[in-house]
Amino acid sequence: MKSITKGLPLVAGDAFGAALQACHRAGSRAGTTYAVFERDDGMLTVNDAVMYLSEHHSWPDIDYRAPLAATGRVVDLGCGAGRHMLPLQQRGLEVRGIDASPGTVALARALGVDADLADISALPDELGTFDTFLLLGGNFGLLGSREGGHRVLATLIRLARPGACLIGTAVNPYQLTDPAHQQYGDINTGAGRMFGQYRMRARYRNMVSDWFDQLLLSPEELNELALSSGWTLSNVEEEGPMYMATLRLT
Amino acid sequence: MKSITKGLPLVAGDAFGAALQACHRAGSRAGTTYAVFERDDGMLTVNDAVMYLSEHHSWPDIDYRAPLAATGRVVDLGCGAGRHMLPLQQRGLEVRGIDASPGTVALARALGVDADLADISALPDELGTFDTFLLLGGNFGLLGSREGGHRVLATLIRLARPGACLIGTAVNPYQLTDPAHQQYGDINTGAGRMFGQYRMRARYRNMVSDWFDQLLLSPEELNELALSSGWTLSNVEEEGPMYMATLRLT
Repeated sequence: MKSITKGLPLVAGDAFGAALQACHRAGSRAGTTYAVFERDDGMLTVNDAVMYLSEHHSWPDIDYRAPLAATGRVVDLGCGAGRHMLPLQQRGLEVRGIDASPGTVALARALGVDADLADISALPDELGTFDTFLLLGGNFGLLGSREGGHRVLATLIRLARPGACLIGTAVNPYQLTDPAHQQYGDINTGAGRMFGQYRMRARYRNMVSDWFDQLLLSPEELNELALSSGWTLSNVEEEGPMYMATLRLT
Repeated sequence: MKSITKGLPLVAGDAFGAALQACHRAGSRAGTTYAVFERDDGMLTVNDAVMYLSEHHSWPDIDYRAPLAATGRVVDLGCGAGRHMLPLQQRGLEVRGIDASPGTVALARALGVDADLADISALPDELGTFDTFLLLGGNFGLLGSREGGHRVLATLIRLARPGACLIGTAVNPYQLTDPAHQQYGDINTGAGRMFGQYRMRARYRNMVSDWFDQLLLSPEELNELALSSGWTLSNVEEEGPMYMATLRLT
């Protein structure tokens, strides 16, 4: 990658949150604001930011079906602006949300849901205990890595009520057809990382987030990770390269 | 900008053309494919690629009005996929197009317009002579710099028939409100460049184009550049930060 020649630094910050807030200010209309994620090989993924704000916008079906199974006290991990929380609240469930992006948490609160700023790897005990953990919008990716995922899943058990389940959606990296993903995964495997451990950062205009790890994994890999962490994979429904998975306490 | 850590290089290529072709393959529908431009300070601009393919998609009014004044033999400079050429052809005008992106030229030809691969700074004599030169979609930006713009405008005179005019649209960088643009412009000015000389490259997925200069300039700056190159600025219509300008042979 060529160097930046003008000597102006990118602005470090919550680029994803800034994109969502800008889209909200623009009336949450499609075609106004884009959320960009950049992998550390330069691969860009662009999404209309409205997809993170509206309940029904181009998400796969499994992302709408997954929260329907939520019961009891619920926590939406990586809740974003709360698009999945509002319908759960309307069903009368008690729903908490956490997200690591200050901008999205502020927006979620403004939109009327109970969201807190927290990283999934450091959940505050004050959250209490839950019957349902949600990892929607591909948020199994928040597991980050084999080691990080193991830690997160084991920690969630501390917050789990008897009979609790974890319902979420994931991307299976082996189902992606672009050869660049295969090449990236092979380099990961060669270095002892999981095939789908993508190093990413968010970008918006001249703002850039810190790097973070997003974990894409197959149902088989998820099964292994769950088993080693006190969970059992009880159900998988695939839809293209994405799938919905339910984990139950072992 | 942090370095890319996985050692996978970005793929050098016609990223803009690749985005337009992907959007065309996806049925030229909005929300499927995005064209990303990155300035050399890291500032990203994202547009739905469909805006470069459809005749009526979120362009300012002046971009539709500008070609209505075209007469005689016409050349569309930076024609892209030819979205402005088809309506001119339907009006019975003889229209040639040139573009520096092989992917868009191939697409333009497939869509039924007479486009050739050429850089505006090196137009082939075989193009012949013209009554109307078009620089639509903000293509006054293709002038690139003070020196490059002077050369281009002087060269066009060689291809100009008596009474020829140049009609185009431009972005006035002094009208952009983001402080990052002001800061970038000030650095340009300090280095002797024009305020709105933006160093850009196109990105699409893991593909990146060469860097190129895009020139944003005020009507006053365009007037100066025109006068020094044998043209006279005869008309300006502003619309937000963009404006339509007509140049006539002096």
